[in-house]
Amino acid sequence: VSALGRVKRLAKTLLSQRGEASGAALARELLACLRRLDAEERFDFYHFLAEGFAPDAGRLRGAAEAYLAAPTPENAAHLAAAADPVRQELLRRLNMPAGGTAALVKMRKELLARLRSTPVLKPLDFDLRHLFASWFNRGFLELRRIDWQTPAAVLEKLIAYEAVHEIRGWDDLRRRLMPDRRCFAFFHPALPGEPLIFVEVALVQGLAVAVQPLLTDDSGGEDAAHQRESVADTAIFYSISNCQDGLRGVSFGNLLIKQVVEELKGELPRLKRFATLSPVPGFRRWLDRRLVNAPPEQDRDAAWTVAPQRPQVPATSVLASLRDEAWWEEQAKADALRAPLTRLCAMYLTGSESGGRGPSDPVARFHLGNGARLERINWLGNTVPRGIKESYGIMVNYLYDPETIEGNHEAFARHGTVARSRQVDALLAAPAPSGMTTPAEVEEHARHA
Amino acid sequence: VSALGRVKRLAKTLLSQRGEASGAALARELLACLRRLDAEERFDFYHFLAEGFAPDAGRLRGAAEAYLAAPTPENAAHLAAAADPVRQELLRRLNMPAGGTAALVKMRKELLARLRSTPVLKPLDFDLRHLFASWFNRGFLELRRIDWQTPAAVLEKLIAYEAVHEIRGWDDLRRRLMPDRRCFAFFHPALPGEPLIFVEVALVQGLAVAVQPLLTDDSGGEDAAHQRESVADTAIFYSISNCQDGLRGVSFGNLLIKQVVEELKGELPRLKRFATLSPVPGFRRWLDRRLVNAPPEQDRDAAWTVAPQRPQVPATSVLASLRDEAWWEEQAKADALRAPLTRLCAMYLTGSESGGRGPSDPVARFHLGNGARLERINWLGNTVPRGIKESYGIMVNYLYDPETIEGNHEAFARHGTVARSRQVDALLAAPAPSGMTTPAEVEEHARHA
Amino acid sequence: VSALGRVKRLAKTLLSQRGEASGAALARELLACLRRLDAEERFDFYHFLAEGFAPDAGRLRGAAEAYLAAPTPENAAHLAAAADPVRQELLRRLNMPAGGTAALVKMRKELLARLRSTPVLKPLDFDLRHLFASWFNRGFLELRRIDWQTPAAVLEKLIAYEAVHEIRGWDDLRRRLMPDRRCFAFFHPALPGEPLIFVEVALVQGLAVAVQPLLTDDSGGEDAAHQRESVADTAIFYSISNCQDGLRGVSFGNLLIKQVVEELKGELPRLKRFATLSPVPGFRRWLDRRLVNAPPEQDRDAAWTVAPQRPQVPATSVLASLRDEAWWEEQAKADALRAPLTRLCAMYLTGSESGGRGPSDPVARFHLGNGARLERINWLGNTVPRGIKESYGIMVNYLYDPETIEGNHEAFARHGTVARSRQVDALLAAPAPSGMTTPAEVEEHARHA
Amino acid sequence: VSALGRVKRLAKTLLSQRGEASGAALARELLACLRRLDAEERFDFYHFLAEGFAPDAGRLRGAAEAYLAAPTPENAAHLAAAADPVRQELLRRLNMPAGGTAALVKMRKELLARLRSTPVLKPLDFDLRHLFASWFNRGFLELRRIDWQTPAAVLEKLIAYEAVHEIRGWDDLRRRLMPDRRCFAFFHPALPGEPLIFVEVALVQGLAVAVQPLLTDDSGGEDAAHQRESVADTAIFYSISNCQDGLRGVSFGNLLIKQVVEELKGELPRLKRFATLSPVPGFRRWLDRRLVNAPPEQDRDAAWTVAPQRPQVPATSVLASLRDEAWWEEQAKADALRAPLTRLCAMYLTGSESGGRGPSDPVARFHLGNGARLERINWLGNTVPRGIKESYGIMVNYLYDPETIEGNHEAFARHGTVARSRQVDALLAAPAPSGMTTPAEVEEHARHA
Repeated sequence: VSALGRVKRLAKTLLSQRGEASGAALARELLACLRRLDAEERFDFYHFLAEGFAPDAGRLRGAAEAYLAAPTPENAAHLAAAADPVRQELLRRLNMPAGGTAALVKMRKELLARLRSTPVLKPLDFDLRHLFASWFNRGFLELRRIDWQTPAAVLEKLIAYEAVHEIRGWDDLRRRLMPDRRCFAFFHPALPGEPLIFVEVALVQGLAVAVQPLLTDDSGGEDAAHQRESVADTAIFYSISNCQDGLRGVSFGNLLIKQVVEELKGELPRLKRFATLSPVPGFRRWLDRRLVNAPPEQDRDAAWTVAPQRPQVPATSVLASLRDEAWWEEQAKADALRAPLTRLCAMYLTGSESGGRGPSDPVARFHLGNGARLERINWLGNTVPRGIKESYGIMVNYLYDPETIEGNHEAFARHGTVARSRQVDALLAAPAPSGMTTPAEVEEHARHA
Repeated sequence: VSALGRVKRLAKTLLSQRGEASGAALARELLACLRRLDAEERFDFYHFLAEGFAPDAGRLRGAAEAYLAAPTPENAAHLAAAADPVRQELLRRLNMPAGGTAALVKMRKELLARLRSTPVLKPLDFDLRHLFASWFNRGFLELRRIDWQTPAAVLEKLIAYEAVHEIRGWDDLRRRLMPDRRCFAFFHPALPGEPLIFVEVALVQGLAVAVQPLLTDDSGGEDAAHQRESVADTAIFYSISNCQDGLRGVSFGNLLIKQVVEELKGELPRLKRFATLSPVPGFRRWLDRRLVNAPPEQDRDAAWTVAPQRPQVPATSVLASLRDEAWWEEQAKADALRAPLTRLCAMYLTGSESGGRGPSDPVARFHLGNGARLERINWLGNTVPRGIKESYGIMVNYLYDPETIEGNHEAFARHGTVARSRQVDALLAAPAPSGMTTPAEVEEHARHA
Repeated sequence: VSALGRVKRLAKTLLSQRGEASGAALARELLACLRRLDAEERFDFYHFLAEGFAPDAGRLRGAAEAYLAAPTPENAAHLAAAADPVRQELLRRLNMPAGGTAALVKMRKELLARLRSTPVLKPLDFDLRHLFASWFNRGFLELRRIDWQTPAAVLEKLIAYEAVHEIRGWDDLRRRLMPDRRCFAFFHPALPGEPLIFVEVALVQGLAVAVQPLLTDDSGGEDAAHQRESVADTAIFYSISNCQDGLRGVSFGNLLIKQVVEELKGELPRLKRFATLSPVPGFRRWLDRRLVNAPPEQDRDAAWTVAPQRPQVPATSVLASLRDEAWWEEQAKADALRAPLTRLCAMYLTGSESGGRGPSDPVARFHLGNGARLERINWLGNTVPRGIKESYGIMVNYLYDPETIEGNHEAFARHGTVARSRQVDALLAAPAPSGMTTPAEVEEHARHA
Repeated sequence: VSALGRVKRLAKTLLSQRGEASGAALARELLACLRRLDAEERFDFYHFLAEGFAPDAGRLRGAAEAYLAAPTPENAAHLAAAADPVRQELLRRLNMPAGGTAALVKMRKELLARLRSTPVLKPLDFDLRHLFASWFNRGFLELRRIDWQTPAAVLEKLIAYEAVHEIRGWDDLRRRLMPDRRCFAFFHPALPGEPLIFVEVALVQGLAVAVQPLLTDDSGGEDAAHQRESVADTAIFYSISNCQDGLRGVSFGNLLIKQVVEELKGELPRLKRFATLSPVPGFRRWLDRRLVNAPPEQDRDAAWTVAPQRPQVPATSVLASLRDEAWWEEQAKADALRAPLTRLCAMYLTGSESGGRGPSDPVARFHLGNGARLERINWLGNTVPRGIKESYGIMVNYLYDPETIEGNHEAFARHGTVARSRQVDALLAAPAPSGMTTPAEVEEHARHA
């Protein structure tokens, strides 16, 4: 029999009575065989899983009919039991041996890469995600501090998984683990040595408004870093990265930030403020769509004019300089751009034109949805190519104030209301530079669009 | 508002949008309030949980109708999602804070005590059990050796939880943790310091046939125990106890025994045999029901006669001596009883009269269902009052032979076939003592009953 | 060759060139052989060690002469090297294998038991003690908290080693490890699981004046104990026990108390006072020697009169009641004895009659020598037989006040000055009850004696 | 008072009675002050320690005289006690606080750097070394495996301390910690995270004869490395590095190698051979001194002729090619040099001309002194510049055969006899190439020199 055939047969056996007696051993064997399959064979097996192992049709039909006839709690419970896919039981048994959880997480990672093109795999993805949401419950996660005492095998994963500000090797990593820094990660007992998500924190005085100084400044070594730690009043969360593609959609970030705030408060009572220094990944795309006659490839020098069908941003000579090479390195140009761009970014991040759905920026939605407040919009907070490309160099502080988190969250969830500082309010209220509509007018326009 | 009212309101809030933002904090608060309620208030809350938090009726009805109209995999998945009780999501959120899992296990323990009298609580029990079966998956359990280096806080739980052969204080416990003993337990990361199940093992030469020597003999101290360890060829599993009432129905014993066999093989290559020394808790009750005219209180001396409606066991003068005080301490009586009783016990344990359903004894069903073999029936293997009371002092060895476990399990699961040694076969085949039917005749009788 | 002969030969080999190549292996073999010798053979070996392995006589003579001729630092260093006994090198090599340190500590324990009767063993004792003082340097000790999470193998040693207030089994031990208690011990890395010394602490409100309530009161279980912990302002060190006879003369108690004070300050900022509740082991003996005509056996009822040759304590009818059975249980007698006995005890503990050498009581000398202050003398602080027998039931608080420790220590070390509270001063200054000399008079007398 | 003056005063206080009461606190203060001194002030303090704190002259004189008058064991013990320098007690007290041991090790490191130029510091060095030899006794060291699970803070020290084959960053380090490698280090409990010495081992098939393949070959990643591990029959110790300059003269290497051999035997029973792959640091210097008329700078092309006053090595055209650039990369030249150079190296390493004192090469003396056997001389085993420079590229295997270690050690220690394989014997016995004296003739010559 082929290796693939063997894996399929083992899956059936695992659900049989033999599986009850020797489940762990059978599952171990199945996973070992699965590892030896090539990519196409594995996907063949995933099809096999996704298309079979459905609930028993007769039993489910009976339970559905019974419930429709008499929608009692008992019948609802029977229906739930009948609808529970056999596939989930199979996946639970695959989880039994050592390494089982890791194998299932890897399975979903591979699955997700093809899900769009192969929707028939969706039931398998649905079941994996359902199990993961239950298994990776906060109550089972372990928060661990990561520092220079952490095993190299874990540290090298930080280097690999960092998704926001690339870690350029071990020296760079070490800088991020100095005494004036903190790094925390969630771990799950069944994935030892595998961070699920981690956050990097800088201990500073005052809100950090630009990320490059955080990443590069290590003047003075350990002692100076201890000194900075001892006077810090603010914790800046400057990077948060999910590590496991296979756990996509199982959310940890919200929990991690709040727990780390608690940890830091306990360890360092001097800390008074907890805020992020975050990218604005969608700002430039949002802005560019609002600037017409600006075909990026064909005619870089053409004057930008307003796109008629969207809240309009007039093409002024100021904004036109965004098309120049390295404009941010020319003080005059950068100064001229500051006011209009930070105001536009404030509009973007408060979702002025969204009709109550809040901003579209994913990072903004994440932090505002967690109950944070839009605190400050930092001009040229990140001038590496990615920062310029995503947001014309703008970075943003979201403030986590334990007192207002719940209220902020609820207002945002119900009405799309964006909690914001006076500073952001002032940006929104400023008179438009000549030739630009005010944000308020744009908002007005949006309401009637 | 009353404390109870507060807990209920917190439960609702926990499922709301505020729960998303601050789930762990809300759950922590809820559990703290719950701890302060008295028993009746807690049950009021359990009613509240069991009767509310059902799936959305409209959505479930729609999904059921859609499935009945078109039973596609997709509609089955939607139906499963719609049937998933909101209650489970609530319980998952309750699990988030530290101590959450312990609180839920305790909740189910209290629930189980009243379930029979209050069936309306069943949906809550169903959901808890469903979650526990997923959360306490073998892949998440940790096998740990328990010995004299184990924290006292864990050891005292062994004393409390031991269910088979009572541990009479710390000296007795220490004897069970000497170098010629092993003790292993499963732990779950969310219940630190709480064994889920543990097994006690004695390392001996040859099959141990009686339990008292294992429990009492500590002649020679540590050195002698090391000596016995070094020459042992057999591991006797003489006690296995579940620790958590709240996890009833989530099965660990099968997995534990098999894993411990693997551990011991690795540690002690001299070990050649792995067997239990088990009680026969239902034997006396089974036998007594087969003996008529034996009103225990009124007429102890009346001759026993056969109950006509069941496989008959003749009342002989031999069996009559079972009514004597301390008959097992009189050599002659004990010798005379040995043959008939061990044979009857063999009948009982092989389920000769069960029509293929296998034996009714719960311990036998457990081990045979795991694939073990009925190896030996030991006359007067346990002469403490409980042993006499349950099984006229008989104990049994079930043998775990890795080579035959799967086959035994399957034969038992499909046909109720009881794997047994030649020795047990011989017992069953022996000619009946004068005045008794042979087991074979009884079996014949049973087949026609 | 005999086993003893073998051990001796191995000792010689261990010091030879073969010892350099294979020291650890040879030492392991030697220690294994030594364990198998009987007690007399072991002492024969100790004689062999004590009498041989002296420094090389010729070399030592040469170095001594050179030093006398020219007492330069260099010659002093050569002399030190030449005087270093070969025996110490042998003992250092014996220490190399795992278990070596434990074997040497045991060797000294056996040695000490016979040292008085066999002074020829002294050189061996001297060398062992010299090595231990170096090896058990504070810098190598580890302070560890002992609680209910500690391995049973360590806890059972507390039960065995407790020297002040006997621990009566595991339940008693558990009471002493409740949340309103602390227990700390020093450990050495080469003696894992073996406490060197441990101290038991009660967290209370106000100075504890009697020990029985500390040992017995566990009303309310864990929760009440947590409650008491949370309001405690005073840490009472009520028991401190050395564990290793073989380390006698290597002092840890001073260091332990001071370090535990630091630990507790850090953990529980509410604690304002750190004091002992200590026995007065020599008081009764001291007092009885001062009471004449009181032949304990012959004439219990005879009036006590003053021994002429010592600072005199008049025999009053009050003190005579100390001869009664269970006098402390009769309120009137106990009340009458309180004033004279606490005053006499104050005299005893301040060493009023010692001519500046300080008190003779060993516990007092220990704490006062550590810089503690004599804070309070507690009438009937310990009424178990040992307390009555040693000190007519009196217990004492010594206060460890970090601010004054150094000054107290120095005054005591130089001049025998006993730091004491006003309360003790008042006791000493009180007018003598009718018929008794005042302590001041006694002191005066002592000065002229 | 100056900072230096303060440190000196603290040193005196530490030895006084105040030091007894508050030794750890005083020592902590002293070490903190010492850290703040600059290098010259620290040396001033070292002078202060080295010149003061001698034994009491009067007491030592008396003890010396008493011993000379009556050299009894008791007087010898008194003399040893009197000769024990007060300085050692001071150093023991400095060791008491956390970090004390590290501070003393650092002190000696600084001291050693100036000892040759400042011999007056020798008494301080002598005392430090004496204490370290006692404190770093094998019985107190902990052997730990180092791998990719080890904290980065330890791993970066390997990179820093590697003394034989430089570790070029983290990727290189990782290669040395792959599954077919082992690395072990000794640690001391008072220097946590600080390796004292470490050894790197490669698991291979057959004796490794060249080091570059060990350092670079990582074809196949983890899986291939596991595969190599599983078939290895030989463990090659290819690098051993002392880490702590301050512990110079306290020997660990011998113990480490032997213990690692035991560890590896236990873990990997397939391993049959344990050998080093070692440099020959003194070979080229030794050889060049034997080649005359070879003024390295003035006349590179002059024919080498024999130096008359030493065992002579004739200058042949073969050896002359050693002066060529990159001769080892030309097959013909390298082949021609192989026979004469490996033979000369065999002469060098067996100490043929040493008159029984054994070879002068320090690496050879270390391994032969440990009882290893000179197993193989590998032509061009190390062709990086250092290898060529030290030994014309030759590397050597020393074999650690537990059966013969003791005998080899003893023969070497007593008679300078070098245990060697037949292969080495054959090299020595080979007829000299034309124009060269045989090793035997050279040896003969040496005997008469």
